Amino acid sequence: MTKIWQKGYSINAQVERYAAAQNSLLDQQLIRHDVWGSLAHATMLKQIGILKEEELQHLKQALLEILAQEKQQSFTIDPADEDVHTSIENYLARVAGPAGKNIHTARSRNDQVLVDLRLYSKEKLLQISQQLFDLCSTLLNFADSHMEIPMPGYTHMQRGMLSSVGLWAASFAEALLDDERLLLAAYEINDQSPLGSAAGYGVPLPIDRQLVADLLGFARVQNNVIYVQNARGKIEAAIVQALTQIMLDLSKMAQDLLLFTTTEYGFFQVSQEVCTGSSIMPQKRNLDIMELVRARTQTMLAHQQHILGIVSGLPSGYNMDYQETKRPLMEALDLAQASIDICTLVISHVTVNTERLVAACSFELFATDRAYDMVTQEHMPFRDAYRLVGKEVTAQLDQYLPLPGENQEQLVARLKKRTHLGGTGNPGLAQAQQRLADAQQRWQHYATTFKTAIQHLVGTAQFTILEEE
Amino acid sequence: MTKIWQKGYSINAQVERYAAAQNSLLDQQLIRHDVWGSLAHATMLKQIGILKEEELQHLKQALLEILAQEKQQSFTIDPADEDVHTSIENYLARVAGPAGKNIHTARSRNDQVLVDLRLYSKEKLLQISQQLFDLCSTLLNFADSHMEIPMPGYTHMQRGMLSSVGLWAASFAEALLDDERLLLAAYEINDQSPLGSAAGYGVPLPIDRQLVADLLGFARVQNNVIYVQNARGKIEAAIVQALTQIMLDLSKMAQDLLLFTTTEYGFFQVSQEVCTGSSIMPQKRNLDIMELVRARTQTMLAHQQHILGIVSGLPSGYNMDYQETKRPLMEALDLAQASIDICTLVISHVTVNTERLVAACSFELFATDRAYDMVTQEHMPFRDAYRLVGKEVTAQLDQYLPLPGENQEQLVARLKKRTHLGGTGNPGLAQAQQRLADAQQRWQHYATTFKTAIQHLVGTAQFTILEEE
Amino acid sequence: MTKIWQKGYSINAQVERYAAAQNSLLDQQLIRHDVWGSLAHATMLKQIGILKEEELQHLKQALLEILAQEKQQSFTIDPADEDVHTSIENYLARVAGPAGKNIHTARSRNDQVLVDLRLYSKEKLLQISQQLFDLCSTLLNFADSHMEIPMPGYTHMQRGMLSSVGLWAASFAEALLDDERLLLAAYEINDQSPLGSAAGYGVPLPIDRQLVADLLGFARVQNNVIYVQNARGKIEAAIVQALTQIMLDLSKMAQDLLLFTTTEYGFFQVSQEVCTGSSIMPQKRNLDIMELVRARTQTMLAHQQHILGIVSGLPSGYNMDYQETKRPLMEALDLAQASIDICTLVISHVTVNTERLVAACSFELFATDRAYDMVTQEHMPFRDAYRLVGKEVTAQLDQYLPLPGENQEQLVARLKKRTHLGGTGNPGLAQAQQRLADAQQRWQHYATTFKTAIQHLVGTAQFTILEEE
Amino acid sequence: MTKIWQKGYSINAQVERYAAAQNSLLDQQLIRHDVWGSLAHATMLKQIGILKEEELQHLKQALLEILAQEKQQSFTIDPADEDVHTSIENYLARVAGPAGKNIHTARSRNDQVLVDLRLYSKEKLLQISQQLFDLCSTLLNFADSHMEIPMPGYTHMQRGMLSSVGLWAASFAEALLDDERLLLAAYEINDQSPLGSAAGYGVPLPIDRQLVADLLGFARVQNNVIYVQNARGKIEAAIVQALTQIMLDLSKMAQDLLLFTTTEYGFFQVSQEVCTGSSIMPQKRNLDIMELVRARTQTMLAHQQHILGIVSGLPSGYNMDYQETKRPLMEALDLAQASIDICTLVISHVTVNTERLVAACSFELFATDRAYDMVTQEHMPFRDAYRLVGKEVTAQLDQYLPLPGENQEQLVARLKKRTHLGGTGNPGLAQAQQRLADAQQRWQHYATTFKTAIQHLVGTAQFTILEEE
Repeated sequence: MTKIWQKGYSINAQVERYAAAQNSLLDQQLIRHDVWGSLAHATMLKQIGILKEEELQHLKQALLEILAQEKQQSFTIDPADEDVHTSIENYLARVAGPAGKNIHTARSRNDQVLVDLRLYSKEKLLQISQQLFDLCSTLLNFADSHMEIPMPGYTHMQRGMLSSVGLWAASFAEALLDDERLLLAAYEINDQSPLGSAAGYGVPLPIDRQLVADLLGFARVQNNVIYVQNARGKIEAAIVQALTQIMLDLSKMAQDLLLFTTTEYGFFQVSQEVCTGSSIMPQKRNLDIMELVRARTQTMLAHQQHILGIVSGLPSGYNMDYQETKRPLMEALDLAQASIDICTLVISHVTVNTERLVAACSFELFATDRAYDMVTQEHMPFRDAYRLVGKEVTAQLDQYLPLPGENQEQLVARLKKRTHLGGTGNPGLAQAQQRLADAQQRWQHYATTFKTAIQHLVGTAQFTILEEE
Repeated sequence: MTKIWQKGYSINAQVERYAAAQNSLLDQQLIRHDVWGSLAHATMLKQIGILKEEELQHLKQALLEILAQEKQQSFTIDPADEDVHTSIENYLARVAGPAGKNIHTARSRNDQVLVDLRLYSKEKLLQISQQLFDLCSTLLNFADSHMEIPMPGYTHMQRGMLSSVGLWAASFAEALLDDERLLLAAYEINDQSPLGSAAGYGVPLPIDRQLVADLLGFARVQNNVIYVQNARGKIEAAIVQALTQIMLDLSKMAQDLLLFTTTEYGFFQVSQEVCTGSSIMPQKRNLDIMELVRARTQTMLAHQQHILGIVSGLPSGYNMDYQETKRPLMEALDLAQASIDICTLVISHVTVNTERLVAACSFELFATDRAYDMVTQEHMPFRDAYRLVGKEVTAQLDQYLPLPGENQEQLVARLKKRTHLGGTGNPGLAQAQQRLADAQQRWQHYATTFKTAIQHLVGTAQFTILEEE
Repeated sequence: MTKIWQKGYSINAQVERYAAAQNSLLDQQLIRHDVWGSLAHATMLKQIGILKEEELQHLKQALLEILAQEKQQSFTIDPADEDVHTSIENYLARVAGPAGKNIHTARSRNDQVLVDLRLYSKEKLLQISQQLFDLCSTLLNFADSHMEIPMPGYTHMQRGMLSSVGLWAASFAEALLDDERLLLAAYEINDQSPLGSAAGYGVPLPIDRQLVADLLGFARVQNNVIYVQNARGKIEAAIVQALTQIMLDLSKMAQDLLLFTTTEYGFFQVSQEVCTGSSIMPQKRNLDIMELVRARTQTMLAHQQHILGIVSGLPSGYNMDYQETKRPLMEALDLAQASIDICTLVISHVTVNTERLVAACSFELFATDRAYDMVTQEHMPFRDAYRLVGKEVTAQLDQYLPLPGENQEQLVARLKKRTHLGGTGNPGLAQAQQRLADAQQRWQHYATTFKTAIQHLVGTAQFTILEEE
Repeated sequence: MTKIWQKGYSINAQVERYAAAQNSLLDQQLIRHDVWGSLAHATMLKQIGILKEEELQHLKQALLEILAQEKQQSFTIDPADEDVHTSIENYLARVAGPAGKNIHTARSRNDQVLVDLRLYSKEKLLQISQQLFDLCSTLLNFADSHMEIPMPGYTHMQRGMLSSVGLWAASFAEALLDDERLLLAAYEINDQSPLGSAAGYGVPLPIDRQLVADLLGFARVQNNVIYVQNARGKIEAAIVQALTQIMLDLSKMAQDLLLFTTTEYGFFQVSQEVCTGSSIMPQKRNLDIMELVRARTQTMLAHQQHILGIVSGLPSGYNMDYQETKRPLMEALDLAQASIDICTLVISHVTVNTERLVAACSFELFATDRAYDMVTQEHMPFRDAYRLVGKEVTAQLDQYLPLPGENQEQLVARLKKRTHLGGTGNPGLAQAQQRLADAQQRWQHYATTFKTAIQHLVGTAQFTILEEE
C-alpha cells in the first residue's frame, strides 16, 4: 500500500525494514483508539466547516465498520502500511470517497499516535487499577485470617523479632495502596488531549481543540503544542515509573515466597498446579512464576530505562526516536497486568505450615523484649540492658543448642502485646480496607467518565472497552 | 568511639571500612533531622512513662546544643561512629546522663534513618518546588517577551513548520508544571511518619506513633510496621523518579540551547560570563553548563537505576543493602537543585538573534500552509493537495537555491493566524501563570505545615530550615 | 502436547501463560542448534554404551528430518510444548521409538538451552564480524576519497580546529577495529561447551564431555558444572556488552550525520531513497533511520541492563529468571546486525557538499595555528601567545562579521601540514586496512573451525549455517 | 588561581560551581599520572626543538618536585584551579620560568586528561588483576579442602541433586578466570597512547607521538586523532563492563553466603569479627558486608549505565559531558578493588557445618540417580524411568515425612561417582590452578612493561606505583 507521504520515488527496502520494526504488530492493538480519535477529529472538522455533514457521515460509517472488523479481529495492518494511522487513512480513502482523503486536514501522525497511546494507556491503567485492588483485597483477607500465625521477623535475612504472617501479608497491601497514589498521578498526566498539536506547531486553521478533548473524555486539553510533542516519551515514562513501583512490591513478595517455600524455611506451601517441574529431576516442583515475577521486575526496570534513555537529550520537536518508546510502554502495561494477576493467584494458593513457623520463633527473637523488661521493670537504661542481654544471648547462640522457643499460645499473647499503630496487635486492617474502598471509588469515577464519552462517540453497538482480555 | 551494638569483641578494620563507605560524610547533612526525630521520640517516651520529665529536659537541652553546634558546623560525625544516630546517641550518653542511654528505647536505627531521610527529603522537595517555580516564571516571562519572534519549528531536526521563540520557551514551563504534579505525589508518599516501626516489627511497648507524627508535622503515620521498612528505597525511588522527569525537561532545553548557539544555527547567544574556554584554542566560548545538564540527566537516570536496582528482589525486612540508597537519593536532590538553578540563570542570559531567526524561516516551512489553502479555498482534499505541493517543493529544494523566506512582519502575521489553543496566536500564557500560582499556593501550604511543626518542636532559637544553601 | 516433566496433574492455565511468554517464538530460531546439540549428545551416549548403534541411527535420521523441515520452515514449536527442547524430544519420542525417550539421559534442559544459545551466538557473532568488516571497509574507502575535503573540527559543538571529512570517516573505522577486540573476547568466553553439566551438578554417569565439545566445534569444555549454569546470563551479558560498544560508535556516527544533514550545517546530503516523509508536511525528507540508530543504541543499553539486572544477586544454580535473558540476547544480536548494515548503507549514500564545508572553515578555526606561529617563529611561550590571540579573536567574533575563511586550496595545504600520526596529513589508512585484514583472518579461522565441525556432524546435505538472512 | 583559558573577564560563580563538581577532589588521585604525561610530552617537545635542553631540565626538576610533594600528600589541587592539569601548569609557570608557559604547546587538556585516565586505569587494572588472583587462589584452596563435604545442589532454590562445598567454591574461581579474559581485553583497549591528539584534531606541528607512547610504556599509539577523543567514555565503559562481570560473580557468592548462613540453612558460619550488630536487637550478628557486595553490584551497574548513558548519542569531538565519566570510572575501580578483597576476607573466615550439610542431603536429591539406575540396569528409557520415579517421590514428599538421607560416607561415595570433567569426582582443580598461573604470568608481563617505562621516566627516587593502598 502507498505510504501517505510518498511522492513518486521508491524507498530502499532495507530502510523500510529497519524503520518499520514491529510497528504494524504493535499498532494492531491501537485500532480502536485510532478510530475514536478520528471520529472526534472528523466531528470537529465538520463543526469548523472543513467537512460537510454528508462527508462526516461517510467517515463515521466507515470508521464504525473498522471497529466492527476489529471486534472480529479481521482488520489487520499491512506491514507495508507502516502504521495504524496509514492503514485507516488508506481504508477511508477507499470507502469514504474524497472525505477519506480530507480527514488528515489539521492533523499529523504525530498527534494521532499521541492520542492513540493516551487512550490506550487510559484503558490499561483503568484495568490495572482494578487488578491492583483485587490483589490488595486478596492480601487483606489473607492477612485477616493469618493475623495470629506467628512468624520470625527478619533483618539482614537473620531472625530478629517476633512478627506474624498476617502482618506480613498486610504490609504488601499497604504498599500497593501507596502505589495507587503514584499511579493516579501518572493517570492524570496522561489524561490530556494532544489532538490539534499536529506536527508539533499547530495549524493555521481555526480548529476547536477543546471540543475534541471533550468528545474523547479527556480531563483537559494539553495546551502548548510544542510541549504536546515534547511530552512524547515523558508521559510514557511517568506511567512506567508508576508500574515499576508496583513491580518492586511484587518482586519483594516473590522473593519472600521463594524463601518461605524452600525446604529449609518450610513456612509456606503452594499447590502443585501453580508449580512446574524439571526435565531431569523427577521430584521437582518449582515456583517458577515467582522467579519470573522477580526477573520481570528487571524487565520493567529495563523498559523504564529504555524509554528514559531514548528521550533524554533529544532536542525539541518530534524525532523518530520517539517511535521506539511505544513498544516498551505497551509491553510494560501488559507485564504489570499479568504480574499482578499471577500474584493474586499465588496468594490464593498459599497454605501456611503453622508448625514450622512456631518452631522457627526461637528464643533469640525475644532478646529485645527481655531488654525492654529490664527497662520498664528494673529501670535500667536501654543501652545497658541491651549490652547485658547481648552477652547472654551471644553465649547461648555460641553453644549451638536449639534452645526452646515458645508455643503458639504464648506467641499469640506476645503478638497481641504489640498494640501500637501498625503492630501485630493493632494491624489496622479496617483502615486499610477503608483506604482501598476510597481508592476504588476514585478510579470508578475515572472509568465512568471515560466510558461515557467513548460510548457517546461510537454508539453502544461498537463499544468495546475495558473488557476482560 | 564505641559502636552502639558492640559487646566486647573487635571488628575487622577492613570490614569496618567497607561497611562505612561515605556514611559519616553523608550523615553530616542529617544532623538536624536526627535531632528533630529524637526530640519527638523523647517527648513521646515521657508521655508513656519511659522517661521522667527531668530526663526529657536533659535530653532536650543536649539535643538543642547539637542543633546549635550544627549551625556553627562544629558538630562532626566521627567516621568511627558509623552514622549520625550513633554520634548523637554517644553525645547524649556523655552529656545527658542515664537518659542518654535510654533514648533508644522503642526505636531502632532502622526507623531513625527513615525519619531522617523523610524529613530531609521534605525540606529538599520544598526547596525544589520553589526553584521549579522560579524557573517556570523566568520561562513564562521570556516567552511573553519573545512571542512574536519567529523561529523554524523542527521535526527530525529538519525544518518543518513556523513556530516562535516564545512558544518554545513556554513549552518548557508547561512541562515543569506537569512535573509539579508528579513531584507532589512523591512528596505525599514521603510525608508519612515511620517512627515506631523500630527494626521493622514494632515493639512490645505502648508507644504513641500518632503523637510523634504530629510533633514532626507529618501528614500521617505510615501504619504497617513491616511496610515501613519495606518502603526504604521505594520512597526514595519515587522521589528520584519525579526528579528524573524534571531533568528530562532540562536536558531537552539544554540540547536546544546547544544547537541554537552553534555558529551554524546562530539563533541565540549567551553572555560570556556563563561560558568557559579551552586550554588550547584561544577563540573558544563553550556553553559547558548546558552540556553538563545534558550529561547529568544521565547521572539522574543512574541514580534512579541505582536505587531501584538495589531494592528490587530484596526479601522483606531491613537489609543492609538499603544503606546504599542513601547516597543516590541525596545526590539526586542536590543535582536537581543545582540543575534547575543553572537553567534559570542561563535563560536569563540568553539574547536572541532575530535576524538569523527570520532568515531561517525559509519557504519550505510554509508548504503545509499552502496545502491548507488549497483545501479551504479550492476544496481540494488534503491528501491530494499534499501530493501536489510535495512535488513542487521537492523540485525547488533540489535546485539548492536559497529561496526567499518572508520578512518578520509577514511571519508575525502568520504566527497570529494560529489561533487555536496552545498555538503561536493563542499560547495561553495567562492560563499557565494561573497554574503556576495555584501550584505555588499548594506547596506554600505544605511548607507552612512543616515549618510550624518543627518550629514548635525546637523553639524559634534553633530553627534552621528551608534556608538558602 | 505433554510437558516432559508432567506426572499426572494439570497446571493452571494462567501459570502456563505467564511462564511461557514468548519462548516458543524465540525458540523457533534455535531449532538447528538444538538438533546439533542432540546429535552430539546422542553420539556420545552411544560411545559410552547408553544407546545402541541402531538407536543412534534412528535418532540421527529423525534429527536430520527436523533439520530438513526447519529449512522449509515447516517445523514449528507448539506453544503448549513450552520450548524447542520439548518439541524436539516429543518429535523423537514419536518417530524414533524408545531411543527418543532415552536421549534425555545425562542431560537437562538447563544444559541444552545453554548449548543452543552458545551455538546460536557463535553463528551470529561470526556474521556480525563480517558485517562489521564491511562497514569498516566502506568507511575506509569513504575516508580515502574524502581526505582532502576540509571540515571544521568541533568541540563542545562549537568550531574548534581544522579537520577533514576523511579523517572523520576513518575515526569510526578505528573505533570499530577496537570493538573487534572486545567482540573477540566475548566470542572466546562463549566458545565453551556446557553440555554434560546437566541440571548444574553433573550426572552419576561416565559421560565424555570432551567428545561432545569436539563434535560441536567448541574450543574447550567449560569445566566446573556449577559454573556452567552460573554462567547463564553472564556470557550473554558479555556478548551484549561488546555489542553495546559497537552501537555506541554507530550512535555517534548517526548523531553526526543528523547534524551534518540539517539545513543549518548542510555539509552532507543523503539520497532520498534512504529518507522518509511526513504525513502533514509535504516538503519533508527525514533521515529517520539515523534517528533510529540513535534510539536503538538505548535499546541495546536496555538489553544489557536487562540481562545484568536479572542475573545480579541470584543465588547459585539454575533459576527460572535465566529464561528471561534469552530474549534480550537474541534481540540484541539482531539489532546489532541490522544497525551495522543500515550504517553501511547510509555511508554509501552520502554525498558531500564541499562548498558548504569550505565556507564553514571560518577564521576562528586557525586561532591555535596563529598562536603556534608565535611560538615557533617569535619564540613566545605558548600561554602568552594564547592570551594574545584570544583577545584579538574574541574582539573579531564580537563584531559578528563573517570574517573570510580560506579557500579549499589553502585549506588542503593546512591539512597536509598535520603530518604526525593520525593527523589529517598522515591519517594512517593503510595501517588501518592492515588491521582490518588481520582481524578478518582471525575471524575466518573461527568461522572455518565452526563450519567444519557442524558440517561433519550433520553431513553436507543438511548444512545450513552462516547464510545470509 | 587563574584558569588557563581566562582572557580578562569574570566567570559567574554559580557556573563555576556547577562546572567544577568534584573535579579537584577526583584529580587529586591523578597527580602522578599527569606528571608522567608531562615528562614524556616535554621530552618530546625538546626532541622536536620546541624546548631547549635547559628548559626541559627546569621542567623535569619542577615535575619531580610535584611527585615528591604528592608522596607527602602535600600537593593539593585548589578548587579554583579547576583540575589537575591547570594546577600543574600553574605550578610550572611559577617555578620553571618561561618553559612552564610553553609546556602546553601541542597539547590540550583534552588529551591530557585522556592520558591521565589511561595511566591511572592501567595501574588500577594491574592491581585488580593481582587481587583477583588472590581471591581465585583462596577459593581454589577452600575448594580443595572441602571437596568431600556434601551439599545439596539447588535449582529454583529447591533441592535438586547432590553437590559438594568444594565444587561450589571452585565454580567461582572458574568464573573469575573467565573474567580475567574480559579484563585483559579492556586492559589492551586502554593501553593506547592518546597524547598528540590535542583537542581532537591534532596540531600543525611535527610532534612525535610514537616517542611519547614509548616513554610512557604504552603498547601503541592510538592513531586517528578524532577517534582518540571519541574514545573518551568508550574505553572507560569497556573497563567498567569488565568490572561488572567480576561483581556479578561476587554478588552470586554473596547471595549464596547470605542464604547459607541463615538459621534456616545453617550450612556456614562466619566469624563474628567480620559481622556487625543491631542497635536494638542484642542478639544480632549480621553479615552486612555480603549484603553490601550484593547492593554494590548494583552500584557497579549504575556506574556502567552512567558512563554509557552519557556517551551514547553525543556527536563527534570533545563534549563537556565527557568530564562526567571520570567519577563513575574512578569509583568503579575502587569499588571492584574493595569488593574483591572483602570476598577474599570472608571466604577465609567461613567455617562449614558438616552436620547440617549432611542432614540437608535428603532423599529427594537422589531421585535422578534412581532414574539413571533404571536406565542403566533395567534398560528402561529415561523418560519412562523419570515418570515412574516422579510419582513415587512426589507421594513421599506429600507425606511431609523427613525421610532419611544418607550419611557422609555414603554421600562421599556418590560424589566420587561423578567422574566426568567438572563433576564432584573430577573437579579439575589442578587445571584451574594452571589457568591461574598462566594468567598471573600474562599480567606480570604487563606490569613489568609498565613499571620499567615509568621508572625510566621518573628515575628510581620518585617511583611510586602499584603499591598497596
